[in-house]
Amino acid sequence: MIERIYGVADTTFSRVNMGEIAIKVIRKEDPDSQISRYTVPGIKDLPVAAKKLIDSGCNGVITLGWVGKTQLDKYSYLAASIGLIFVQISTSRHVIDVTVHEDEAEDEETLREIAIDRAKKHSVNLVKLIKDGGNALTEMAGKGLRQGYSNAGSID
Amino acid sequence: MIERIYGVADTTFSRVNMGEIAIKVIRKEDPDSQISRYTVPGIKDLPVAAKKLIDSGCNGVITLGWVGKTQLDKYSYLAASIGLIFVQISTSRHVIDVTVHEDEAEDEETLREIAIDRAKKHSVNLVKLIKDGGNALTEMAGKGLRQGYSNAGSID
Amino acid sequence: MIERIYGVADTTFSRVNMGEIAIKVIRKEDPDSQISRYTVPGIKDLPVAAKKLIDSGCNGVITLGWVGKTQLDKYSYLAASIGLIFVQISTSRHVIDVTVHEDEAEDEETLREIAIDRAKKHSVNLVKLIKDGGNALTEMAGKGLRQGYSNAGSID
Amino acid sequence: MIERIYGVADTTFSRVNMGEIAIKVIRKEDPDSQISRYTVPGIKDLPVAAKKLIDSGCNGVITLGWVGKTQLDKYSYLAASIGLIFVQISTSRHVIDVTVHEDEAEDEETLREIAIDRAKKHSVNLVKLIKDGGNALTEMAGKGLRQGYSNAGSID
Amino acid sequence: MIERIYGVADTTFSRVNMGEIAIKVIRKEDPDSQISRYTVPGIKDLPVAAKKLIDSGCNGVITLGWVGKTQLDKYSYLAASIGLIFVQISTSRHVIDVTVHEDEAEDEETLREIAIDRAKKHSVNLVKLIKDGGNALTEMAGKGLRQGYSNAGSID
Repeated sequence: MIERIYGVADTTFSRVNMGEIAIKVIRKEDPDSQISRYTVPGIKDLPVAAKKLIDSGCNGVITLGWVGKTQLDKYSYLAASIGLIFVQISTSRHVIDVTVHEDEAEDEETLREIAIDRAKKHSVNLVKLIKDGGNALTEMAGKGLRQGYSNAGSID
Repeated sequence: MIERIYGVADTTFSRVNMGEIAIKVIRKEDPDSQISRYTVPGIKDLPVAAKKLIDSGCNGVITLGWVGKTQLDKYSYLAASIGLIFVQISTSRHVIDVTVHEDEAEDEETLREIAIDRAKKHSVNLVKLIKDGGNALTEMAGKGLRQGYSNAGSID
Repeated sequence: MIERIYGVADTTFSRVNMGEIAIKVIRKEDPDSQISRYTVPGIKDLPVAAKKLIDSGCNGVITLGWVGKTQLDKYSYLAASIGLIFVQISTSRHVIDVTVHEDEAEDEETLREIAIDRAKKHSVNLVKLIKDGGNALTEMAGKGLRQGYSNAGSID
Repeated sequence: MIERIYGVADTTFSRVNMGEIAIKVIRKEDPDSQISRYTVPGIKDLPVAAKKLIDSGCNGVITLGWVGKTQLDKYSYLAASIGLIFVQISTSRHVIDVTVHEDEAEDEETLREIAIDRAKKHSVNLVKLIKDGGNALTEMAGKGLRQGYSNAGSID
Repeated sequence: MIERIYGVADTTFSRVNMGEIAIKVIRKEDPDSQISRYTVPGIKDLPVAAKKLIDSGCNGVITLGWVGKTQLDKYSYLAASIGLIFVQISTSRHVIDVTVHEDEAEDEETLREIAIDRAKKHSVNLVKLIKDGGNALTEMAGKGLRQGYSNAGSID
């Protein structure tokens, strides 16, 4: 049996411990796996964390970022997103990017629920892609799935 | 006869199964071809999907993305677009990018029609470029062609 | 005599056949040259077209893009511009970028004139740089030259 | 005992000598280390400074940038951020990015306090990551830590 | 004595001959140096000009760009800035970027003064970095230096 290694990169900036949630879900979805965690200060540090996790042998990585409310935070989100995409295309490895924006909800409870739901669903997505490859999610293609919110659904 | 391999990368975020449409069109336009499909959660995962399809031998790829309405979705679109362009220039392979923006139309029916038309027309474009090379579309250069909408036309 | 090869990359999205204009000008300015043309659907496909033209031996390339009016079109312009710059710096070859924005003029006739003027002037620029090198334009440095509009002029 | 080398890159544009602060903190946190400093004019010069520090053997780098108030300054911030992320992912080394925006506070005293607090806290973060690796900050993951401001705190 | 080679890249779009100013200052500041000049149409051509100057042996480069007033010009500025940063981090060479924005001043005389001051001061910065290395500017770190305007000063 091939044992898979997953990377989990999270931040101290985040207000929810999404890294812990991701680890629990991955462990449940793929018991024959190892998990490496890497914690950095903020989202702009996530690309190098993902890169170092892949360098160390991870087959795929999930990053768990939290973004503030200002326009500058959004530029940081853009820069980090570009970086995470480049880590992926230069290594041909998935880095599933969970991001929660502080202005997605007006109260902290809703924000917490978004973070938990998004971290859980994308952890499952990562395991499916790493374990079963590029057709693992095809059954759900075009179905309007959402993470952090209820599904939008298909309009086919 | 040289057999071509096409890659089709789509998402579970999309509300229309554009991957299926692309496969049908490619099969019709180029019966002597193989098609590989790769489904990912969202647009920011499309660049690595395209890269992995090219790694596996695809001569060209079509990606089928769906983008939400918020400014953050637009930044994600920008990051994904930059990534898709880099996959292309680092591999010298075409990755034709079909993107539908949820705010392109006010009702779902119109949105669905845009998605179908765009996916179909760009699938034909991809096959033409891969089968017949850089002059395959030259007859239509400057003609104001549109995908998802009716053509704007030439003003020559 | 060294024969130069120029690449001309244009789109079917464009409403003016700028590729044809560029070819005419290059042929007149540098009769001892070959020209390769590559036509793609839209601006986001231009970076890979330029890359493939350089791969095939072109000493320099001119790309002729047309951009729509929406904010999304502008993000596509930004992504394409970054891609075109990376093609250049990774190959050390010039890719002169002619872009016409649909909202540069209120009527089609003016837009057509902008497109023609810009394509012509930049075709001359490309030939000068490829034939005569980095000092070919130095006499005009700081002169406030414009393409598509009348020159702004020097304020020295 | 392995001796670590830290890089400190700062600017003449900055209105607070954050480089000096970073050096003091690093020296205190990791007495068995060497520190190299590199001063450049502004934020857009920081990526190459970080790259040169890593080329010269630094195990990790902290950059200390200051950004003006205009939209153009913000685009420069975005370009610099993308560059800093690419230095990291192409070298697999951390470059912790301290940035102070001139419009973060209305008076100079507050701005100075933000700069000092951010430089100090991120210097500690850098040392922890370089000395103790990717789990050094895990105890604080999801705790809503802030640099330059008081912590937002966890909402778990 | 080691002879240094400086690159000067400027544009025909610029309304002030900043390349000439840079050459004069560099010659005065570092008489034992050679200077190569490369003139291109506009800012988006500057990254490849800088790359070609470095390819030809320049130890450092100054680019002198001029940017129009529209939002599109600003996106071009952003793309060019990202490109200039990548030239630097992929070659580990400084490319000091002088940019003048047409909307920085209301009258041409002020604009001209900004351009001259910025070109002069950054030419001196380049020479210092190339001749004396990463500590050449450290004495001025955090001093709030400005180019094109009077210094903001330290708030330490």
